[in-house]
Amino acid sequence: MSEQTIGVFDSGLGGLTAVRELIKILPGEDIVYFGDTARVPYGTRSRDTIRKFAMQDLRFLLDKNPKAVLVACGTISSVALSDLRAMTEIPVIGVVEPTARAACNATRNGKIGILGTSATVKSQSYQTAIGAIDPSIQLTAQACPLFVPLVENGYLDHPITELAVKEYIAPLQEAGVDTVILGCTHYPLLKPVLGRILGDHVTLIDSGKEAALALAAALKAQNQLSSAAEGQRRYYVSDEVGNFSHIAGMFLNQNIDGAVEKVSVKTDD
Amino acid sequence: MSEQTIGVFDSGLGGLTAVRELIKILPGEDIVYFGDTARVPYGTRSRDTIRKFAMQDLRFLLDKNPKAVLVACGTISSVALSDLRAMTEIPVIGVVEPTARAACNATRNGKIGILGTSATVKSQSYQTAIGAIDPSIQLTAQACPLFVPLVENGYLDHPITELAVKEYIAPLQEAGVDTVILGCTHYPLLKPVLGRILGDHVTLIDSGKEAALALAAALKAQNQLSSAAEGQRRYYVSDEVGNFSHIAGMFLNQNIDGAVEKVSVKTDD
Repeated sequence: MSEQTIGVFDSGLGGLTAVRELIKILPGEDIVYFGDTARVPYGTRSRDTIRKFAMQDLRFLLDKNPKAVLVACGTISSVALSDLRAMTEIPVIGVVEPTARAACNATRNGKIGILGTSATVKSQSYQTAIGAIDPSIQLTAQACPLFVPLVENGYLDHPITELAVKEYIAPLQEAGVDTVILGCTHYPLLKPVLGRILGDHVTLIDSGKEAALALAAALKAQNQLSSAAEGQRRYYVSDEVGNFSHIAGMFLNQNIDGAVEKVSVKTDD
Repeated sequence: MSEQTIGVFDSGLGGLTAVRELIKILPGEDIVYFGDTARVPYGTRSRDTIRKFAMQDLRFLLDKNPKAVLVACGTISSVALSDLRAMTEIPVIGVVEPTARAACNATRNGKIGILGTSATVKSQSYQTAIGAIDPSIQLTAQACPLFVPLVENGYLDHPITELAVKEYIAPLQEAGVDTVILGCTHYPLLKPVLGRILGDHVTLIDSGKEAALALAAALKAQNQLSSAAEGQRRYYVSDEVGNFSHIAGMFLNQNIDGAVEKVSVKTDD
């Protein structure tokens, strides 16, 4: 990997929804991904623990000398982005701000729903970001603590997932939202069931995708885009390769077995 | 805490099902509990990661100078017990062996079901233990990867939990088991819904309780029981106190707010 690499990280598999978009819009870029699969999920943990884990994760990625980092995790973006930005001079792009902008552009009735982890909802990150763009917008936020375990265990379209979706979106439906932010990068993996239950009249905003678009725009503005035809991608995880490799390969629609490696991130307590 | 303390640990809340039993049968004992709430769940992680985390947890407890340690976690007991025993001279009691014995005593038709984490089921720990007691017993094991997230997030008796229970017990019902091992110490928190769906003719074996009984017998045999009327209990967790304190207090049926402390366990990679 050269200094041309884009670093991407998440607590687990979810950040791959951003990687998939990056590959689509910037196929020539080298990407190095880190998923903290030994400590996933983050979204039910405390602010302090999330910040500690996130800073350890970023330190691992910075050793790979990236030109920019995508924080492909709604939880980390919501509670630790300023801590992460203080660690480096390179651009560190989170999901919240670009996603908030996309949702404000998408809504027709001014009513937006947010699905996120407990930590994301508690942080009020989306309320702050959307309030700064258009304070007249009505927000309804719902924590979905079971979504990450459902995704990480492969329950992508299953009656249990369907029941969880119905429960979590009820307050959003009651509020009459026409736009729903998938505030955690794991959630686009639940799009089939979410779309089916929410219906066509509701626009789903994919936070991983919006963050990938924002990163591409930032690199373009700084003339830092790669000129290669096809980039190299390398995936690191903190737990066993096998499980990740399998689900990730299915999700990215390519076999990545040889490109995944297990590593230990440095901890300091 | 004196050298009279009993150490108990688990990945999170589950081990409290063993603590509740210990308090009931040995009210005079001091107990020091550790729940690794910053890294829960363990049961969906790899063998190597579970062993690493478990050894770090035990090291923390050994610094408290206990007279014995109860490994109140089915996953750790299944994959790391010998590693833990190699770290100390004091008795280290796991859940598998006493629970296997209790299940063999309880079954009338020789058909036993095991509900456990993915790691526990993969380890075949119960198959080995029960095979050594009575090789004629027919075992049906089922991994239940959603149970720990359901419990840790407070979905103790909820339609989503009910649906997960129905799915996981189907193969056990098909096999005609009359005895079901709750192979993870989180699962007794799901007893109301498990009992309702399995019915009265099925005996539930609580692994935390069986391990607590085994520990009490071991201490008695070595004349190490405390003579105090009421022991002191201290709870340590690796993430925020608040959430744990609340659910733990409800579960133990006493307010333990002042007795819970957040700590960092030493990691070494």
